[in-house]
Amino acid sequence: MSLLVVGSMAFDSIRSPFGEVEKVVGGSATYFSLAASYLAPVRLVSVVGMDFPQEVIRMLGSRSIDTRGLVVKEGKTFHWKGYYEYDLNTAHTVTTELNVFRDFEPVLPEEYRDTPYVFLGNIAPSLQQDILRQVRRPKLVALDTMNYWIESSPGPLREVVGKVDILVVNEGEIRMLTGEYNLVKAARKIMGWGPSRVVIKRGEYGVLHLSDDAMFAAPAYPLEKIFDPTGAGDSFAGGFMGYLASRGDSEITEMDFRLATMYGSAIASYTVEAFSTEKLQNLTAEDISERLGSFLALTEFRI
Amino acid sequence: MSLLVVGSMAFDSIRSPFGEVEKVVGGSATYFSLAASYLAPVRLVSVVGMDFPQEVIRMLGSRSIDTRGLVVKEGKTFHWKGYYEYDLNTAHTVTTELNVFRDFEPVLPEEYRDTPYVFLGNIAPSLQQDILRQVRRPKLVALDTMNYWIESSPGPLREVVGKVDILVVNEGEIRMLTGEYNLVKAARKIMGWGPSRVVIKRGEYGVLHLSDDAMFAAPAYPLEKIFDPTGAGDSFAGGFMGYLASRGDSEITEMDFRLATMYGSAIASYTVEAFSTEKLQNLTAEDISERLGSFLALTEFRI
Repeated sequence: MSLLVVGSMAFDSIRSPFGEVEKVVGGSATYFSLAASYLAPVRLVSVVGMDFPQEVIRMLGSRSIDTRGLVVKEGKTFHWKGYYEYDLNTAHTVTTELNVFRDFEPVLPEEYRDTPYVFLGNIAPSLQQDILRQVRRPKLVALDTMNYWIESSPGPLREVVGKVDILVVNEGEIRMLTGEYNLVKAARKIMGWGPSRVVIKRGEYGVLHLSDDAMFAAPAYPLEKIFDPTGAGDSFAGGFMGYLASRGDSEITEMDFRLATMYGSAIASYTVEAFSTEKLQNLTAEDISERLGSFLALTEFRI
Repeated sequence: MSLLVVGSMAFDSIRSPFGEVEKVVGGSATYFSLAASYLAPVRLVSVVGMDFPQEVIRMLGSRSIDTRGLVVKEGKTFHWKGYYEYDLNTAHTVTTELNVFRDFEPVLPEEYRDTPYVFLGNIAPSLQQDILRQVRRPKLVALDTMNYWIESSPGPLREVVGKVDILVVNEGEIRMLTGEYNLVKAARKIMGWGPSRVVIKRGEYGVLHLSDDAMFAAPAYPLEKIFDPTGAGDSFAGGFMGYLASRGDSEITEMDFRLATMYGSAIASYTVEAFSTEKLQNLTAEDISERLGSFLALTEFRI
């Protein structure tokens, strides 16, 4: 079944201990769409400027990503410039040029309104609300956010979080959002607001996935070479939602959510092995199932 | 089979966001011995002062812990005073009074010299060497260390690390010891020095266990209430080594090492639920197997 994603598309200029790249293609919706496209048809809602390469849009279109919701607007594409220290865990922002993203007002093409799976990427909570008003009876909605919105729009954010099924955030964000340091308590607080599941991204430490009656902990794959962590969280979310969407109309069980978490982890583990979407856009189904097998070997034990 | 441990016994004065305790029983060998005693007979080598409570020594003796190697010496017991911030990950030291531990020169009772399983706790590398010289053909030797020895005795430390089978350290320590930030590379470097396995403790993120041909990632149990992380790493090591020692003469397989890791994790998850050894010393076999089952439920997925 189809999966709708709304979020940013951008140019990233990144310095890491392993190299430096200038204005490569990035953005949360870009990583998300590419990751999800291995598992389900994606409907993309975003905005870029006239400087965004046509061939990237064509590449997305060639991969079961519907780009009718992608607006190409007079002006320049969102540009993020940042760097990573040796630990690769924290992205340090040098500059953020919002450009055409500043006035982003997502309007769903009519054909998108019945999309059953929806991912509200990290944009203003009021815009996430707008999207929710435009979709009709989605089967499952997940939401991501970031520190900036937690600080600047706590009211609207809490309102929209209350309307979704799954919150997907990193551990710093859920602590900030709930005021709870303990992640189990923080997740319970979120579930009190509405969502039935909370997926906590912990970077190199993996993912903690909590619901009312179950907890699932997935490690990140211990890689010998990590070039650029940019997009890892968005690739994770794309693989996670892509697998859920691939389940179609069937009832989604706890084991499905767990396998979705592992699909997200497997795809994200490839994203970080190269700058930009270089590795992510060139995966095969065999790569993904091979990494899933490696994850099983990494975590298996018998009592 | 028996398990020998050499390490500190201490009084701890601890402040955490959840309370404050003054001069409670602690020390790496104390936590290790208690944790291991659920799984194998322990032979303890340590030193305390005349102020150390006799009833604690009796309590250890009542739990299959041989205390003939515990020296009670004129003077005061090692005293550590420290605190934890809200994140509970980093112990901040206020004062360290070594007292009788300053002149600790471990001498193995004759009956201890044939112990097949040996754990060299966090003491001076030269003393760890002394212990190795005193044991006869051990089956398996593991070693822990800390930043202080990595900085002050790098040569002797590297020499003794080269003689053991397993290095058990936390992630900050292995990075410091090897100069490699990446944990896979750091572990490979250590394995180049001699050990065939490296067990990396990551606090609330669990454990990464590496050998030449396998990697195993175990999460920490996501607890809603953590009172005091003191002793978690030592309890982990005790459960880990205790399970290995319980395998006796049988060949120890990769799956045994993994289950040992889970025994360590299960026991450590109880230690942090109370100050000092309060919870650790009152476990039942059912508590431990129940937590092992919870770990299985926490990590299970099917492709």
